[in-house]
Amino acid sequence: MSKVLKELLTANKNYADNFKEKANLAMPPKRRFAILTCMDARLDPAKFAGIAEGDAHVIRNAGGRASDDAIRSLIISHKLLGTKEWFVIHHTNCGMETFTNEIISDLLSKSLSTSTLVDDGWYDDGIDSGTSAAKSIDWLTISNQAKSVYDDVLRIRSHPLVAKDIPVFGYLFDVKTGQLVEIPEATAVGKPTELSHSVRK
Amino acid sequence: MSKVLKELLTANKNYADNFKEKANLAMPPKRRFAILTCMDARLDPAKFAGIAEGDAHVIRNAGGRASDDAIRSLIISHKLLGTKEWFVIHHTNCGMETFTNEIISDLLSKSLSTSTLVDDGWYDDGIDSGTSAAKSIDWLTISNQAKSVYDDVLRIRSHPLVAKDIPVFGYLFDVKTGQLVEIPEATAVGKPTELSHSVRK
Repeated sequence: MSKVLKELLTANKNYADNFKEKANLAMPPKRRFAILTCMDARLDPAKFAGIAEGDAHVIRNAGGRASDDAIRSLIISHKLLGTKEWFVIHHTNCGMETFTNEIISDLLSKSLSTSTLVDDGWYDDGIDSGTSAAKSIDWLTISNQAKSVYDDVLRIRSHPLVAKDIPVFGYLFDVKTGQLVEIPEATAVGKPTELSHSVRK
Repeated sequence: MSKVLKELLTANKNYADNFKEKANLAMPPKRRFAILTCMDARLDPAKFAGIAEGDAHVIRNAGGRASDDAIRSLIISHKLLGTKEWFVIHHTNCGMETFTNEIISDLLSKSLSTSTLVDDGWYDDGIDSGTSAAKSIDWLTISNQAKSVYDDVLRIRSHPLVAKDIPVFGYLFDVKTGQLVEIPEATAVGKPTELSHSVRK
């Protein structure tokens, strides 16, 4: 058994030993909101946004991007589980800013094993992996933090299956301070374009 | 300002006020692993798996499914940021077990607003949304918990851009006990098919 697996199972035993009333939490998020953010190891959305078990949906991928899959999740979150406000939260110093589609395609064609980021770019000493499969993938890299938040809020707002009364807020998490900083242009473009269903009725 | 937004920003201020040495965390996950799990509000991966800021990547979507987007994130996690072990963790009482592609397509064609799950199925009092866009989406619903973990570990293991030396473990989180329960068939199919790159060299 690997060290990581052993540590993970030990941590889980401690958690389960004190699970108590969490056994009775309902499936729909109690505070009726959802966060879309990055998988980055430095981010703990429960801590930086004050979320307890049962409170909110948390969706995470590389970059916190509004991919089709993230939007699938958000639509399910609202339509079937009742969330009414959504937050798109990218962050400073994101790994997605360190490469392009071309760079990762090239690295993966050389080797599937871990590459290293050195001062003058990515370094890969692997042997040819014999695959060009990476070329067909949009890796959703980021070239400008505020713009990526704006683009993703806009993509969500414009989606034909997203209810028009859900506000979508745009924020950046600063990994140097722990602070959430609003991207006002993103929040503005994420404003509801209809009154809420419950108000309208 | 909404109640949720106000609470979230207050919680964030408290977090940032005590951020301290977390400002110096490195981008690559220190403990070199990644978790793919569900967005479900009852799940807090940092707590149930003992993950501190800086330790590990966490990828989440509706169901914790190995979608193309989740696999995009995992490949970046290994190739560019050095994770070496991956965990697929679905859970009991998942919302993704409560509907099918047909049901959600039908509900969304009636209305984009929240529907209610009642004893005899989903209930929707909305007006016609006029959209059939939902029909073209695979919502990645779940009909059997252990099988969905197995299928997703297998999908990751079989992907042409996934390094063959990464172990992929399959687990279910029990929302009644907080315990992680292994799905042995999934972990078995997720075994590395090559020795690790560093061992081999």
